[in-house]
Amino acid sequence: MDAPFSLQMKVRDYECDLQQIVNNAVYQQYCEHTRHEYLRSLGIDFAGLHNRGIDLVLVRAEVDYHYPLRSGDRFEITLRVEPKGRIRFLFHQAIFLLPERRRIVTGVFHGASLRNGRPALVAEVADTLQQASETT
Amino acid sequence: MDAPFSLQMKVRDYECDLQQIVNNAVYQQYCEHTRHEYLRSLGIDFAGLHNRGIDLVLVRAEVDYHYPLRSGDRFEITLRVEPKGRIRFLFHQAIFLLPERRRIVTGVFHGASLRNGRPALVAEVADTLQQASETT
Amino acid sequence: MDAPFSLQMKVRDYECDLQQIVNNAVYQQYCEHTRHEYLRSLGIDFAGLHNRGIDLVLVRAEVDYHYPLRSGDRFEITLRVEPKGRIRFLFHQAIFLLPERRRIVTGVFHGASLRNGRPALVAEVADTLQQASETT
Amino acid sequence: MDAPFSLQMKVRDYECDLQQIVNNAVYQQYCEHTRHEYLRSLGIDFAGLHNRGIDLVLVRAEVDYHYPLRSGDRFEITLRVEPKGRIRFLFHQAIFLLPERRRIVTGVFHGASLRNGRPALVAEVADTLQQASETT
Repeated sequence: MDAPFSLQMKVRDYECDLQQIVNNAVYQQYCEHTRHEYLRSLGIDFAGLHNRGIDLVLVRAEVDYHYPLRSGDRFEITLRVEPKGRIRFLFHQAIFLLPERRRIVTGVFHGASLRNGRPALVAEVADTLQQASETT
Repeated sequence: MDAPFSLQMKVRDYECDLQQIVNNAVYQQYCEHTRHEYLRSLGIDFAGLHNRGIDLVLVRAEVDYHYPLRSGDRFEITLRVEPKGRIRFLFHQAIFLLPERRRIVTGVFHGASLRNGRPALVAEVADTLQQASETT
Repeated sequence: MDAPFSLQMKVRDYECDLQQIVNNAVYQQYCEHTRHEYLRSLGIDFAGLHNRGIDLVLVRAEVDYHYPLRSGDRFEITLRVEPKGRIRFLFHQAIFLLPERRRIVTGVFHGASLRNGRPALVAEVADTLQQASETT
Repeated sequence: MDAPFSLQMKVRDYECDLQQIVNNAVYQQYCEHTRHEYLRSLGIDFAGLHNRGIDLVLVRAEVDYHYPLRSGDRFEITLRVEPKGRIRFLFHQAIFLLPERRRIVTGVFHGASLRNGRPALVAEVADTLQQASETT
């Protein structure tokens, strides 16, 4: 199944560690950036929400590391959202080496909406993500 | 049950993101640093191994985010190792806010030993981690 | 001359890049953390100021890289503040490898105080840093 | 004068700190990535050189911070190289907010070539950068 959203990026050398491969924490940054760009594409501004007391946060991450990225590698990060009720959202993500599309990372990220630091239904977020999950 | 190894650290402001909390990927860096210091305490030098063609890598991470760390917070990261056979190792880790020891993050990190990029039994690693898991 | 403030830290492996030395940008993070801890020791809370519309920002950095830090290295970061008028502040910083105190980095960081995004005299900051520079 | 090389990038939210602007150290990472991509465009592979005992390192950085980047900003990083003899190289870089091209950062980065950790003339690097500086 095609993912409804994806970004293409390129490894930056400072993201590689002394094993000469991209550091494990960096894949999570790649996935976060992709989630935020996805939200932005739906009209949800992560930084703007924060300034109104609304935060989208991770509550759980499950990441499988299949194969490493290295200096100079180009890759694609995919995303598909799956609402779990109105406050929780699963983001299914994967990273593929380009051009051969070898699978690098598979991740499932469990997000939640908070208002003033507590789990809360945020209608504008819940409606948008519900609609996005149905149309893709 | 007490964890057999732990480090105390303090949040650095550059680790906080625009939500004014420690960025999700940084907790994984904290856990990695703790694993490497643990290995070092057992006489296993991560960088030295790499230069001999041996790499210890993550194959899977499961991270639960319970509560955020903020600017100025002190915290403790704990670690307990559990061998799964001779090539795979589970690292059970947790982060606690100090001094009240509120739980911040719980993580299970699945590591594996590689030789020249392929999963391989590395006796010096397997024996050391087996012994460490039995004596603690 | 002794520096009036210093921190001791240890290299974390994820701070090393594929040259197996600490990445250049990381030394700047070390220096920032030391400045923030110094300010905190004087009762100036960087994050708290931001939430009141006051920001301390860098306007210029001059950094000389003498020798690299590597995996496992312990080091000390020193700091001496020199006010330039009431809005600008120089932070003279250096990083030394321990225990031999070999010089790693020398930095001069030019800071300024802002109120609502514009350069402004912030009396509580200016007075505190002036006093700190005279007593050390 | 037009810079002979430039990259366009976009701020990633994890690069912003609790002041909600891109952290100072990150601009240095942006500039490093641009230098490495420039070298790559000339056929000089930074990671490949390292594996043959040749390292290109920074010996000094001078960075002026004019205006911050924020969440969602697009920007361009420019680069012009100026050899200083055969072992030292100046990289003149700047970052501009897009589309208005407001100046964000100006940097001068002093690089040097090393062989086995010591300053050394590396003909393939010196010739390539000399030629590049003359034709642009």
